[in-house]
This record gives sequence, C-alpha cells and structure tokens, in this order.
Amino acid sequence: MNTKATKIRVTYKDTDQMGISYYGNYFTWFEIARTEYFRNFGIVYKKLEEQGYYLPVVSAACQYKAPVFYDDMVVVHPHVTHMGRSSLTFTYEVFIEGQEGVKATGETKHCFVNKEGKPLTIPEEIRKIEDKSQAVSGKL
Amino acid sequence: MNTKATKIRVTYKDTDQMGISYYGNYFTWFEIARTEYFRNFGIVYKKLEEQGYYLPVVSAACQYKAPVFYDDMVVVHPHVTHMGRSSLTFTYEVFIEGQEGVKATGETKHCFVNKEGKPLTIPEEIRKIEDKSQAVSGKL
Amino acid sequence: MNTKATKIRVTYKDTDQMGISYYGNYFTWFEIARTEYFRNFGIVYKKLEEQGYYLPVVSAACQYKAPVFYDDMVVVHPHVTHMGRSSLTFTYEVFIEGQEGVKATGETKHCFVNKEGKPLTIPEEIRKIEDKSQAVSGKL
Amino acid sequence: MNTKATKIRVTYKDTDQMGISYYGNYFTWFEIARTEYFRNFGIVYKKLEEQGYYLPVVSAACQYKAPVFYDDMVVVHPHVTHMGRSSLTFTYEVFIEGQEGVKATGETKHCFVNKEGKPLTIPEEIRKIEDKSQAVSGKL
Repeated sequence: MNTKATKIRVTYKDTDQMGISYYGNYFTWFEIARTEYFRNFGIVYKKLEEQGYYLPVVSAACQYKAPVFYDDMVVVHPHVTHMGRSSLTFTYEVFIEGQEGVKATGETKHCFVNKEGKPLTIPEEIRKIEDKSQAVSGKL
Repeated sequence: MNTKATKIRVTYKDTDQMGISYYGNYFTWFEIARTEYFRNFGIVYKKLEEQGYYLPVVSAACQYKAPVFYDDMVVVHPHVTHMGRSSLTFTYEVFIEGQEGVKATGETKHCFVNKEGKPLTIPEEIRKIEDKSQAVSGKL
Repeated sequence: MNTKATKIRVTYKDTDQMGISYYGNYFTWFEIARTEYFRNFGIVYKKLEEQGYYLPVVSAACQYKAPVFYDDMVVVHPHVTHMGRSSLTFTYEVFIEGQEGVKATGETKHCFVNKEGKPLTIPEEIRKIEDKSQAVSGKL
Repeated sequence: MNTKATKIRVTYKDTDQMGISYYGNYFTWFEIARTEYFRNFGIVYKKLEEQGYYLPVVSAACQYKAPVFYDDMVVVHPHVTHMGRSSLTFTYEVFIEGQEGVKATGETKHCFVNKEGKPLTIPEEIRKIEDKSQAVSGKL
C-alpha cells in the first residue's frame, strides 16, 4: 500500500437505511486523507493555520462506483494533481481493504488564503511536497 | 402545540442501517431546539457570542424510549429547568408529529463563560426568560 | 421565492473552527432540498422506497462561492435538469435569506434501482414532475 | 496504554466555531470505542447483526470536563460495567494522547434485541468478555 494512503473504518453512524455509507461522508474521508497526506510530509495543517494559512475548499466532487458497507475498512489514496500560485487540487481514490476495484473517486480544489480570505502564495514547504508525491503516486 | 417546540424532519443522513435515527443525532436536535427556544424570547445565541458570552455544554444525556424513523417530523419541547448564577439546565421531550407518546427525553447542562472559559453571570435577558418559560411549560 | 426552495438553518454543529459551515454539510442540504422538492409534487421518497424504488447517488459536486455562517438561513433551490430512462440529475443553488448572490451551486446524479441495485425505469409520477418543474424554474 | 483503548483523530468536521469538538461527536467516538472493544475480544458487531442480534442504545450520557481541539488524538477507554440478562452498560473515559487528565466521561446503556425489537439473552461469547475485561480494567 502507498504510504500516503489513509485507513478509515466505516462506523454505524456513517450508514444509512439503504445499509451503505451515506454519500456525504466521503467528503469527511477526503479531509482526513489530505490531512494525513500532509502529515506524512511533515506538514501539520493545524500549524499552518497557526501561521495564518487557511485552506478552504473551493469545489468538491465525488463519483460513487460501488457501495461501501458498515465496518468496511476504507482506504483513501490522495494525490496532489495541480498546484497553482495559491490553488491546490487533490484527487482521491477510495478502496476497501481486501477488495478489488475502486469504490469511488473524488476531487477537491482549495485556495490558500489568510484569515480575511485574501489569496496567499502556497508556502514553500507545501510546494516541495508535490514533487515527492508525484514520484510516489507513479508507482501506484 | 407549545409555541416553543421545534420541528425537525429526520433526514436520510440521520438514519443508520437499523433503519432508525442514529442515537447521536438527538444532541443536534437538542441544540436546534434550545437555539429556537431562545429565539422565541427574542434572544439570538449568535449575538450572545458576539457580546462575549459562550454557552458550552457541561453534560448531556438522552433516554431513547421508542425509535424514530426516516422522514418522521420530530418535535422537540425544550424547557429551562434550572438556572444558577452561571449555569443553566435544559430538558427536552422528543415527540413525532401525529404520533402518541414521548420518543425520547434528554437533558443538557451549560455554563455561561467568556472566551477564555471563565464563568460569567447569566445575562439579565436570559434570566428573565426562565419565568415566562415556566409559565408556558406548566400548561403542557 | 420559488415554492420548491427549502430553508435550512445553519446549526452550531454545521460550523467548523474557520467559523463557517463545513463543506460536507452542503450535501445533506441537497438531500433535504430534493426530498422536499419531491414532496411539493406529492411524491414522498419514503413511499418510493416502500414500493421498491431506491435512488442512490451516482455522483455529487459542489462549488463554494462565498462562505455560509452560523445561524444563516440557507435557501436551496433544486432543479431537475436531466431525466434519462433510469437516471436523474438535480442541480442546486444555495442562497442565504436576506442576502444577495449565490453562495454555492451543486449537482447530484442519481439512478433508480431496485433493492438489488438493478436499474429501474423512472416511475411515471416522477416523469411527470419534470415538465412542471421546468415551467416553474423558468420563472426564476 | 490499555489494549482495549481506541484512538480517534479529531477532524476539522468535528470542530465548531468555538474552536473545539462539538459535544455530539463524543457519542460517535463511544460507538467506535465499543465496536473496537468487542473486536479486541474477537467479536465483530457486524456479524452479531447477521446472526440476528441488534444492540440499540437505551440511554447515553457524557460529562465534558475539558475541551478537545482540532487534530488532538482522542483516546477512548471503554469498559463494560454492568451486564444483565439482555442489557449491557458501557462507560467511557476520554483522554488526549500526550496530555494529563480525563477530558470527558460517558456511559451508554444497551439492550440486545432481535430485528423486531424483542429482548434477547446476551450471547454467550459476549458474556465471557466481561470477566476478561474486568481483569484488564483493574490495572488501569
């Protein structure tokens, strides 16, 4: 498994009466996956905020290919697929541990801003991440 | 119906694979109900925060007496049952529109604090509420 | 206001430490809006399920244009913009009551299936909705 | 650390505009903790349901002693403190990794029922757990 992948167990709370994970939950999984992705490169998002960098979501999307069930171990693979001056795009692939096939794919676009919402140039430590990430994701 | 009661429709998100509303949702319903309770007395919690008053939860409890289902119209009756110098207790009764019997009861205890978490005397406008509330809830 | 629009108050639970509504919440608002959209045309989604029709989400997307704050009254305008043999597309516009401008737009694609996940032809009562909906949304 | 404790990272979604974890989230953490508690004893709750055993919550409570912040690593210690013929009580202690002191305590009461909600005798494999659990928790 890609070292940047994050595992999240599907809770009972996540399920709905169709017996599968509710479609809105995937966006929380994406949040967890990109936070851990950063952490794997030594970047703690909490500290970025303390330094005045905020990373709100500009757009988000998810394609649901196969249902995910209670107690499944979700494995999310995040990748940085674009980096502009202030903007950043993550894509995500959602798998279930021990199962074949992608269960969902997704994308979130972000913009680094200050507390007042004014765009900021992406911090250097983030800019460096991209290269490493591409190297790793190439092996996927 | 008591004018202070709040109606909340059970969403698909609220359901779990048992086909009923997840037990943790009730605490969000309690939040909605006490906010609207305040609003009915002309008190907007958002403005209290702008004035430096915060009302974190000190304890919370819920007793589940009968399941609540998707698309049910939940009716929550909140009551202020205790008011100390800084502290406040709400109790809640959860009904379903068009159905007999209490589905759940609950309680949350709060303390008025400033941004640093130091207890504050309950603002006068809240203190006045209590009396009116008791008068109304007596008719229930 | 369009009669098919749905109002949802932003709860404290919805907020995050950026002081705005978390990006994942919008998908729950979309669910509420499309359920009420159906209800306005006399169709209760709960009853569709009882008849063996399920409407899982195939894809979902949201574009966040301006932040939404605690206690804001969100107004979601849903529209059916496409109807295939089994599939259905909703678009959504998110406003705040008393404020100018669209705060967010979104889209969800769905497919009518039976309990085993096999595609079903859209029920006639839903098919009829589309026409009325387009007539109404033309006035927006 | 007690081997039955479960770690859960506080997400951005979990936070509210007070900058702390919303009070309703703790009940999801309790769910995760008791599921993993069972799993540590070889009992998979999902399989219990497949065998016709359901474990709805009869009552739930939480006492919040100190705030929990974004990105904190929550450590929940669950204990079975009572076992009746059909009923089961869990208590929980919430810590933050690397910090002194209990942040919250909680309790959930449950009843084993069949799909129709009729009480069932607690399965033998669960009954056996209790003893082991007490032995371990005694060392806490």
